[in-house]
Amino acid sequence: MPDPSLLEAFPTPSDAPFVVEHIAEEFTSVCPKTGHPDFGSVTLRFQPRPGSSGGTCVELKSLKLYFQSFRSEGIYYEAVTNRIRDDLAALMKPAWLLIKTDWRGRGGIRSIIRATSGDVPTTWGH
Amino acid sequence: MPDPSLLEAFPTPSDAPFVVEHIAEEFTSVCPKTGHPDFGSVTLRFQPRPGSSGGTCVELKSLKLYFQSFRSEGIYYEAVTNRIRDDLAALMKPAWLLIKTDWRGRGGIRSIIRATSGDVPTTWGH
Amino acid sequence: MPDPSLLEAFPTPSDAPFVVEHIAEEFTSVCPKTGHPDFGSVTLRFQPRPGSSGGTCVELKSLKLYFQSFRSEGIYYEAVTNRIRDDLAALMKPAWLLIKTDWRGRGGIRSIIRATSGDVPTTWGH
Amino acid sequence: MPDPSLLEAFPTPSDAPFVVEHIAEEFTSVCPKTGHPDFGSVTLRFQPRPGSSGGTCVELKSLKLYFQSFRSEGIYYEAVTNRIRDDLAALMKPAWLLIKTDWRGRGGIRSIIRATSGDVPTTWGH
Amino acid sequence: MPDPSLLEAFPTPSDAPFVVEHIAEEFTSVCPKTGHPDFGSVTLRFQPRPGSSGGTCVELKSLKLYFQSFRSEGIYYEAVTNRIRDDLAALMKPAWLLIKTDWRGRGGIRSIIRATSGDVPTTWGH
Amino acid sequence: MPDPSLLEAFPTPSDAPFVVEHIAEEFTSVCPKTGHPDFGSVTLRFQPRPGSSGGTCVELKSLKLYFQSFRSEGIYYEAVTNRIRDDLAALMKPAWLLIKTDWRGRGGIRSIIRATSGDVPTTWGH
Amino acid sequence: MPDPSLLEAFPTPSDAPFVVEHIAEEFTSVCPKTGHPDFGSVTLRFQPRPGSSGGTCVELKSLKLYFQSFRSEGIYYEAVTNRIRDDLAALMKPAWLLIKTDWRGRGGIRSIIRATSGDVPTTWGH
Amino acid sequence: MPDPSLLEAFPTPSDAPFVVEHIAEEFTSVCPKTGHPDFGSVTLRFQPRPGSSGGTCVELKSLKLYFQSFRSEGIYYEAVTNRIRDDLAALMKPAWLLIKTDWRGRGGIRSIIRATSGDVPTTWGH
Amino acid sequence: MPDPSLLEAFPTPSDAPFVVEHIAEEFTSVCPKTGHPDFGSVTLRFQPRPGSSGGTCVELKSLKLYFQSFRSEGIYYEAVTNRIRDDLAALMKPAWLLIKTDWRGRGGIRSIIRATSGDVPTTWGH
Amino acid sequence: MPDPSLLEAFPTPSDAPFVVEHIAEEFTSVCPKTGHPDFGSVTLRFQPRPGSSGGTCVELKSLKLYFQSFRSEGIYYEAVTNRIRDDLAALMKPAWLLIKTDWRGRGGIRSIIRATSGDVPTTWGH
Repeated sequence: MPDPSLLEAFPTPSDAPFVVEHIAEEFTSVCPKTGHPDFGSVTLRFQPRPGSSGGTCVELKSLKLYFQSFRSEGIYYEAVTNRIRDDLAALMKPAWLLIKTDWRGRGGIRSIIRATSGDVPTTWGH
Repeated sequence: MPDPSLLEAFPTPSDAPFVVEHIAEEFTSVCPKTGHPDFGSVTLRFQPRPGSSGGTCVELKSLKLYFQSFRSEGIYYEAVTNRIRDDLAALMKPAWLLIKTDWRGRGGIRSIIRATSGDVPTTWGH
Repeated sequence: MPDPSLLEAFPTPSDAPFVVEHIAEEFTSVCPKTGHPDFGSVTLRFQPRPGSSGGTCVELKSLKLYFQSFRSEGIYYEAVTNRIRDDLAALMKPAWLLIKTDWRGRGGIRSIIRATSGDVPTTWGH
Repeated sequence: MPDPSLLEAFPTPSDAPFVVEHIAEEFTSVCPKTGHPDFGSVTLRFQPRPGSSGGTCVELKSLKLYFQSFRSEGIYYEAVTNRIRDDLAALMKPAWLLIKTDWRGRGGIRSIIRATSGDVPTTWGH
Repeated sequence: MPDPSLLEAFPTPSDAPFVVEHIAEEFTSVCPKTGHPDFGSVTLRFQPRPGSSGGTCVELKSLKLYFQSFRSEGIYYEAVTNRIRDDLAALMKPAWLLIKTDWRGRGGIRSIIRATSGDVPTTWGH
Repeated sequence: MPDPSLLEAFPTPSDAPFVVEHIAEEFTSVCPKTGHPDFGSVTLRFQPRPGSSGGTCVELKSLKLYFQSFRSEGIYYEAVTNRIRDDLAALMKPAWLLIKTDWRGRGGIRSIIRATSGDVPTTWGH
Repeated sequence: MPDPSLLEAFPTPSDAPFVVEHIAEEFTSVCPKTGHPDFGSVTLRFQPRPGSSGGTCVELKSLKLYFQSFRSEGIYYEAVTNRIRDDLAALMKPAWLLIKTDWRGRGGIRSIIRATSGDVPTTWGH
Repeated sequence: MPDPSLLEAFPTPSDAPFVVEHIAEEFTSVCPKTGHPDFGSVTLRFQPRPGSSGGTCVELKSLKLYFQSFRSEGIYYEAVTNRIRDDLAALMKPAWLLIKTDWRGRGGIRSIIRATSGDVPTTWGH
Repeated sequence: MPDPSLLEAFPTPSDAPFVVEHIAEEFTSVCPKTGHPDFGSVTLRFQPRPGSSGGTCVELKSLKLYFQSFRSEGIYYEAVTNRIRDDLAALMKPAWLLIKTDWRGRGGIRSIIRATSGDVPTTWGH
Repeated sequence: MPDPSLLEAFPTPSDAPFVVEHIAEEFTSVCPKTGHPDFGSVTLRFQPRPGSSGGTCVELKSLKLYFQSFRSEGIYYEAVTNRIRDDLAALMKPAWLLIKTDWRGRGGIRSIIRATSGDVPTTWGH
């Protein structure tokens, strides 16, 4: 069961501009309709608020455990993407944040979903 | 015969910004001139209207069946692209929508056709 | 409906050793269980009997039409592969022949089937 | 001899926005200096004028024959590119048009030439 | 829990030589030491015994469900590979059979394990 | 018109074992049926007879001009391959020789033809 | 121990616009938590101030030695990136500068961190 | 010794917009410090002034000979890039021009240097 | 300092044929001449002796720690390869074993070293 | 001028089986006919005689300098390959040795030349 309490954060180590990107290549959840596993990758990209304003960055190992908590969850692509965006935005309150999920395909159709929080610069929105 | 009645939609699961992309790698229709099969991929990319404004998203399995309904149709590249754009725009009335068809070639020429509905941001128009 | 009567052959143009390989990248038939289309490639590899012994080679355009005749057929991967092997071996009675079908996947599993006729040298059997 | 009379067009099938791209992978002409063949690809990208304004799109088979008419012509890269741009702009009078020729190299130098007609949006100019 | 009772087989559809290869790109089990998920691909390659000798081939959908039954199992790479080899050899009693598991890496080391049953020809043993 | 008189050779520069491979990426001839150009690559691989036995190697520039002499010839894939094998075997009388032509496809089917002269070692016959 | 005193610079050799990019493919430091080595690449991209304004460029060999000085350092991804940005900005005081570190992954998650100094043009910020 | 007198130009063959790109994949010069050879590629991209304003384009064969004149020169990456930019800008006085040198690496660090003349549009500056 | 005491093994889990391959993509040691770091990958491939004959397999985590113990060692490519072969052959006394080290290059030359123990079948010796 | 006196060797560090491969990606010499530079890669592969029989291995840096000594030499592909084979066989008197030169092409034809000394096992002769 997706468990945001697994997530930990540490104070942004700098006030200078900074963009962080974490790419989990092996995400898996379960299709709520068929019960078959879904496989995909999840990209998290964000600009933390400066450390002096109380900004934080998600800790890498906790992020991995949080992603693993979706393993037995029956949940749609769109819901996965929204859920992760909401949980991480709540954790870090970053300047902006983008979640991109890229699914390896079901019935011959690959899907890519992107959800954002805050004002993502054009350059980073893809 | 292309059959838009196969398409189903579900309410947009969020009001936050959201871009969906479905890529069908194995689309096939028939060339109306020669009767030979055409092979290509179809990309659908759109931003749904927010759920609170009655926005909807196309359901993935219904999209697959709709694409399969072109299998025996004699229809030009350009017409395939326009037809899909029109049918999906009518279904979802999204903020914006792009259809891109990428054909594997006939007579040594590959073709890519893009048709849009609404105001597609530059970043997403390619 | 698979139609071997579409196949034509011409006399082997030489008595010297000769290996021919035709690769159809865009083969499609229908799954007999689900009715969904299957997509794959078909490789035909053979050494014709010498022209002076009455050997023949399949004509390329007729091969294409023969492959297209599987388009609406509900037929398993294994049956497609055996059927093509049998039809082409009957047509050409080659020194040896290999059919390899490579399917893009269903339910996350890709499949490759190889069927042979005659004594395929190790080098060519893959 | 490059022969624009081979080109045919058909009325733009829609008034909605539409970008067409045809990529001929196997273009060949002759170097006027050395008499050796040049090999390259030609990309045509354009937005047709709307059908209701009398806009047209080039027909694919006629485009192929037109490209083949350069086969024995002694002509420089730059002239090929300009010639095609001029002939196709005259045929279709499109909203905008880009011709990109990509040459596989002579003397260790690859060349890419792009010529435009009308106001090509930044996104499409590459 | 790995469940060989999920596996089904059908009679080999031919007596002529025949090699079948199924590649499951998205296999997942759990590391028994750390509890973290392992991700890899599984290749099954075999030559069925001829149909007239009672030979059978594994059915594709049942194979997929069988592979999914490892999803929550804490099991080592080597044991996965041996287990699958044993279960499929017991099911089909093929002329020969090879299982190859290819793991995406843990601690910076990728692993590939191959287990065989019967006399795998050199050409097919890799 | 294919013109073997363009070919020149020079004495094998060594008696020690020696394998030469020349790969012409841009070969073009004309389909005798349709009049459309065919595009492909030609690989020549051979072991010259030792210099002390009067062995020779084809000169590279003459090979290029010989290949260009097929440019306006209406000739089938199989005939191109046999013709080149015969002309080069006659020129060099090598220990063994292989010609491989790899054609970019017509009607969705790619073709590869290999013709040999003498006893090509298994390693080199592909 | 990261040692900025290893860095040397030379005067910018021109006043005309100039962008320099150095990509170190084999950077390694140590994870401060686990003691295991981290591997990644580091990209430095900057526009030097003009030579006539006292601008300088980092010397390539000194940069390599500086990067090697992180080899035994226990330091987080984020700190590596900030540290390098600060040291090089202090050395060169460039018009703008970007540091991008790309890490090959730990626990199935790859990370990319970008830190900037000055006003990096959009084109160069990725 | 770099010799700009080798460069030749011809009048721009058109007044319509036009971008030329020449990519020399095999550039070599010598490191002035170590005496070892450096290997890289050089990209020249420019928009010529219109032919009616006396604009010219560099001739391809002369460009190749000019690049070869660096072969025995002891010269730094940065100086190569500036030198080529200056010589070609002086020759053609183009609307704008970009030189990009991409070096295959020394001591594990690859370098890319870009120098410009005139006002290079953002799209072309990379 | 290379430390074979870090290596652990477990009993071969089966008596049926079995080939294990572990690929460490990120191996690093130090050049004894220059003191600069070397980077490469190490492949270990072996067939364990059957479990019933007392055969063992190296444990994956211990292998990783063993490889990390070369990190500060000044040692040549050839010595690394021989050392690992000797240590692992002593540990497991396998039917056969191959060590392949693939180095990313120094002074423009990449190197690959393979060392074996026992009678490696041709198929596995590459 | 190719200078074998630059080559140095050290005693084979082991009596166990051992295959060494050095790949120089950036080899350059000059075409004796046209004076233009040729670019290619050179692969040296050999099995040294055992150290106890006086066997030696070429030293890597001396090999690099030896390869650089061809930089201004006017010499054909075939002669380069034979020359290197002869010089290295004379230096090391290995169990067997293979030289493979792979040239990036002149006039659209790529060439690969392989020369051997001693009895190269089939596996290694490619």
